[in-house]
Amino acid sequence: MTMETVSTNTAFGGTQGVYRHDSHATGTPMTFSVYVPPHDPGERLPVLWYLSGLTCTHANVTDKGEYRAPCAEHKVIFVAPDTSPRGQGVADDEAYDMGQGAGFYVDATQEPWTPHFRMRSYIEDELPALIAAEFPVADLARQAITGHSMGGHGALTLALRNPDRFRAVSAFAPIVAPSQVPWGQKALGGYLGSDRGSWRQHDAVALIEDGARLPEILVDQGDADQFLDEQLQPERLRAACAAAGIDLTLRMQPGYDHSYYFISTFMADHVAWAAARLHAKDPA
Amino acid sequence: MTMETVSTNTAFGGTQGVYRHDSHATGTPMTFSVYVPPHDPGERLPVLWYLSGLTCTHANVTDKGEYRAPCAEHKVIFVAPDTSPRGQGVADDEAYDMGQGAGFYVDATQEPWTPHFRMRSYIEDELPALIAAEFPVADLARQAITGHSMGGHGALTLALRNPDRFRAVSAFAPIVAPSQVPWGQKALGGYLGSDRGSWRQHDAVALIEDGARLPEILVDQGDADQFLDEQLQPERLRAACAAAGIDLTLRMQPGYDHSYYFISTFMADHVAWAAARLHAKDPA
Repeated sequence: MTMETVSTNTAFGGTQGVYRHDSHATGTPMTFSVYVPPHDPGERLPVLWYLSGLTCTHANVTDKGEYRAPCAEHKVIFVAPDTSPRGQGVADDEAYDMGQGAGFYVDATQEPWTPHFRMRSYIEDELPALIAAEFPVADLARQAITGHSMGGHGALTLALRNPDRFRAVSAFAPIVAPSQVPWGQKALGGYLGSDRGSWRQHDAVALIEDGARLPEILVDQGDADQFLDEQLQPERLRAACAAAGIDLTLRMQPGYDHSYYFISTFMADHVAWAAARLHAKDPA
Repeated sequence: MTMETVSTNTAFGGTQGVYRHDSHATGTPMTFSVYVPPHDPGERLPVLWYLSGLTCTHANVTDKGEYRAPCAEHKVIFVAPDTSPRGQGVADDEAYDMGQGAGFYVDATQEPWTPHFRMRSYIEDELPALIAAEFPVADLARQAITGHSMGGHGALTLALRNPDRFRAVSAFAPIVAPSQVPWGQKALGGYLGSDRGSWRQHDAVALIEDGARLPEILVDQGDADQFLDEQLQPERLRAACAAAGIDLTLRMQPGYDHSYYFISTFMADHVAWAAARLHAKDPA
């Protein structure tokens, strides 16, 4: 694995970088950003992943997420991947919610998506190994993950499938039950086909119904979010967590919409939530 | 004066708005952003102006400035104007440092700029009156101002010409002596003509040499700024302030460049600097 540095900028005492590498999983160049906060020589820090929503690249949260101040304060590395493979020769769809910018964090089994749309393998396996190799990362068994909308879906499902990797899981306005809402039905149907059984590994509520467990989850959701009723439906997650004994903190935030104005407002809370759990000592 | 609301978003408990109005000064529609932090009904808050640099619109700092958290904490309204008139029928130049996006906060006296390039009148007179009329502003005799690069030049010169209006003045990587550097010589020569006497009202160092005074100024400057030696030259401001008895706090920030990664890192300091002076009681 080789990694190219696209740019680095000093910020909040640390380094905000943008990097590119040739992904085996997607068969394309992939770009991502990493913020490494100020730290002592040789010090290794825990990682918080942020998975982005529909239409986004790594750049949206990097520009507008306001995570560098809390990551510097709490000594947490912040990794922001892209949301799909991109470029000529990569399948796409004219709609904003399918194809490039809309990978939904699955490995596609349906044409024309199978050659490159392998975002599950990319985010779950390939990119963590690259991050561990290239950055001063403490311990990949002690990570945190969050995300927004489609990326909230990605964060919840990845953590539910791999609970031993994550000490903290949160989301901003996540798609909690993609099998039951239009965005998810279109994407999972398109990438995975009509067998709904194959969707359940990519649906947070279905994973919980099928026995996946996390000790606790933090979700912020704006009550003025234009996608709340049709696409997000956090009450489905509330019901599933209640039935499963998962300690869900679901905060309905009055007046907030689906934008980065919402995300940036609560980003410091999510970084602090992650940091408290990442830096906690293991029980003796 | 009528003002159109382009967008509003809840952020950090307040409202980030983008607005448009037909400017008498420029003869064009002008767009600006205003953040009004959470406040009590009827409460009026002081204003911090932020003037942007070359190529920017209101949107750059609105997206990337990270000012909403400190403005909410300190109860300060944040106003971000555009950097020039824009649109069809407005003169422009192919270069990034002249014409649209590069108004330099002057009233042009030279063709083809005179019809619309009246950013001094716009920022110094017209927009403050609109802001006072449309937003819960405390007192236009108690304002603060800051800006970046060309906008740092704008902030310093506007404040030096109008010291009674401003309780706090700061800048990020300002052009402190445009008469003596390429960006400024091109812009002031282009907009104001070759009579360098007319430039002195638009040159912070020249204004100080000519007797303008402020009690104190805060400047942050990255020492890895690619424009430091050729265009910015903060030591000229240091010398002028020393000779004039102006209390300049000039902080050279190691490793920082000219980008919004630099600005956002120190934004909270500039908001706090402004707020401490805006909220201070007048001497009895």
